[in-house]
Amino acid sequence: MKTITKTEREGYTYVEGGVCAARGFTANGLNCGLNPDKKKNDVCLVYSESVCNTAAVYTKNKVKGAPILVTKRHLEKTGGKAKAVIANSKNANTCNADGEEKAERMAELAADVLGIKPEEVVVASTGVIGQILPIEPLETHIKELAAGLSSSGNAKAANAIMTTDTVPKEAAVEFKLGGCICRLGGMAKGSGMIHPNMATTLNFITSDVSISPEMLKKALSSVVKVTYNCLSIDGDTSTNDMVSLMANGLAGNAEITEEGKDYDCFREALYLVMESMTKMLAKDGEGATKLLECSVSSAPDEDTAILVAKSVIRSPLLKCAMFGEDANWGRILCAIGYAEAEFDIGKVDVWLSSAQGTVSVCKNGAGVEFSEEAAAKILSEDEIKIEIALNQGEASGRAWGCDLTYDYVKINGDYRS
Amino acid sequence: MKTITKTEREGYTYVEGGVCAARGFTANGLNCGLNPDKKKNDVCLVYSESVCNTAAVYTKNKVKGAPILVTKRHLEKTGGKAKAVIANSKNANTCNADGEEKAERMAELAADVLGIKPEEVVVASTGVIGQILPIEPLETHIKELAAGLSSSGNAKAANAIMTTDTVPKEAAVEFKLGGCICRLGGMAKGSGMIHPNMATTLNFITSDVSISPEMLKKALSSVVKVTYNCLSIDGDTSTNDMVSLMANGLAGNAEITEEGKDYDCFREALYLVMESMTKMLAKDGEGATKLLECSVSSAPDEDTAILVAKSVIRSPLLKCAMFGEDANWGRILCAIGYAEAEFDIGKVDVWLSSAQGTVSVCKNGAGVEFSEEAAAKILSEDEIKIEIALNQGEASGRAWGCDLTYDYVKINGDYRS
Repeated sequence: MKTITKTEREGYTYVEGGVCAARGFTANGLNCGLNPDKKKNDVCLVYSESVCNTAAVYTKNKVKGAPILVTKRHLEKTGGKAKAVIANSKNANTCNADGEEKAERMAELAADVLGIKPEEVVVASTGVIGQILPIEPLETHIKELAAGLSSSGNAKAANAIMTTDTVPKEAAVEFKLGGCICRLGGMAKGSGMIHPNMATTLNFITSDVSISPEMLKKALSSVVKVTYNCLSIDGDTSTNDMVSLMANGLAGNAEITEEGKDYDCFREALYLVMESMTKMLAKDGEGATKLLECSVSSAPDEDTAILVAKSVIRSPLLKCAMFGEDANWGRILCAIGYAEAEFDIGKVDVWLSSAQGTVSVCKNGAGVEFSEEAAAKILSEDEIKIEIALNQGEASGRAWGCDLTYDYVKINGDYRS
Repeated sequence: MKTITKTEREGYTYVEGGVCAARGFTANGLNCGLNPDKKKNDVCLVYSESVCNTAAVYTKNKVKGAPILVTKRHLEKTGGKAKAVIANSKNANTCNADGEEKAERMAELAADVLGIKPEEVVVASTGVIGQILPIEPLETHIKELAAGLSSSGNAKAANAIMTTDTVPKEAAVEFKLGGCICRLGGMAKGSGMIHPNMATTLNFITSDVSISPEMLKKALSSVVKVTYNCLSIDGDTSTNDMVSLMANGLAGNAEITEEGKDYDCFREALYLVMESMTKMLAKDGEGATKLLECSVSSAPDEDTAILVAKSVIRSPLLKCAMFGEDANWGRILCAIGYAEAEFDIGKVDVWLSSAQGTVSVCKNGAGVEFSEEAAAKILSEDEIKIEIALNQGEASGRAWGCDLTYDYVKINGDYRS
């Protein structure tokens, strides 16, 4: 993983605006009736006045939501060009016989009202799997949705894609490329069924940078690997996971067409936004009370570091112990031990840390004496770090997740009702 | 998987006696003080008057409990011969600097009091990881433990290996080989940290059949694959998993030295006992209210069938839905879809069933209309079957697990205290 040092972050400023932070992007969200709670938006539109180079990554689940199949087809048809996103919550439009037809219809509705081609529309849905998507509410409200598009509509859109999320997730940064002020921002949803494989949940990222489709794709794949793909709420890889990244070039920079300083700068902005949203997703995991971050250092290679970090973050036993604020480090060792990677467990050191300090709990694969009192204090915080040194290499990696609580069981015991 | 038809089970009778069911085996268990609850046994001894051919499989976790390392060394030294098992609960003797020394000491204590060699002793521990095992309680009580060995001591021994288990697990069968009456029985423990990989939890199986070390090993490996290795409580593969199988030959049958009718008959007995204990383990999973069985049929091969069944059984979202008695079949499809195997998801059919009947919920990978009322009735039972037809081959496989409940979180929020 590319280490992000403080110095490298210089030149980036976090800004408001989410998907509307970048020039030329407008958004809107409203309740069209899919969600009986009228205060909760259930459909959104994101629109760029200029055509965007667009890259996307999708779930590796064999069961793919119909919107995934349709979006993939659209981007193939246009060679990675798009002007709009339409997305709904409350219904995943997955495992339905008429799924693709309905997803195409959503694209048509957006295209008609915006005066663009249906294949220039990215389509996404999230919610219950296997229930027929009613299209009428969307047909009825599409004009109102488009009429309300505004450069400050990002919050309404972010609200529309929330399901069991308790908070909206938005992030954006401003930076410079060759004297031009650039912005990159996004919104995400996701709370359960999160164990991404190539992508996660729904994530829409927009930028005004000018960058070629190839370099856009490259940046997205490389950053997904060390952000969303290092996130696990419950080990369930969703059927509808998608990240789309649209860049309309309105910042006026010289187009990025190869690796180099400008590419690195853009990739860094993308990393900062996606890392922020990854942490937001982890912290808002279903029923979560704590954000867990596991960092693995001195690993033989990056893949091993990430595999070990994800194995720890995924362990239900560790997640319960963190909920109980119990420094049961044996469970950390256990989860390190069953990670599917090759390394010598006898060299491993482990620390627990938070704003309250750091405590060493394991040295060379064996327990060390530590103050239970100090450990309990550390674990009482709502952001916990599990730091692991494999002591057999130079590579590092991180993963994010949350604790496993009564509320996770409650939320998922009867999700459909 | 070898399908077990009713006819094939003829000739087998379930009997009492657990590890003492077979001739020549005695057992005992008592509280030596590791567990402050004096009513709960915490150490046990199993002894065979004749030397046993002994096979064992161990956890694949890189973190291996010291007793695993010591047992492995012993069986290598003796060429797979043993006469006794000593096992304790409350402390896993894992990740301790003096772990192997203590595990060897346990073997010595048992060997001294029984007048056998230390390497003829199988050693096992279960409980908290990373706390020093106090050896004094074992030294103080070893004579009393040996003095109490009896052919009806199986229940005391089974009690001694329980941790968060709410019920002891024992099973035994009687059958005939060439006119000789044979028995095979065992005991198991395990409730959490269960997602076996080559073995699970602690399992001790004894038999009076005469069988060569090679065939014993072969039978154990093949049956573990379709029983314990198809069990998942929480996806955590323990550091101390072990199954040992001891056969002392006292039944007087002609030694089994090759595949054939006698081997099949022995393997079947082993299958019946291990399948019974696998279900007991699943049903008594930490906090569980329901036993879940997932059977996959018409798969391209057995490995695919088992991978799909285990993927479904492991899904936290499905486990919560089963706890909530919610027929959220989309989660079943989702878990089938992320199983790491190659097949066409578009041909898959799914049914939910229990003693209350069967309901079809998915056909050709898409939802079908079904009565929610009938489904709710089916899911109200405490043994639920999820039946999956892949419709692309002849192979089948099963996996077992349980629901995910508030009590799982409660039990594991503070396991150490």
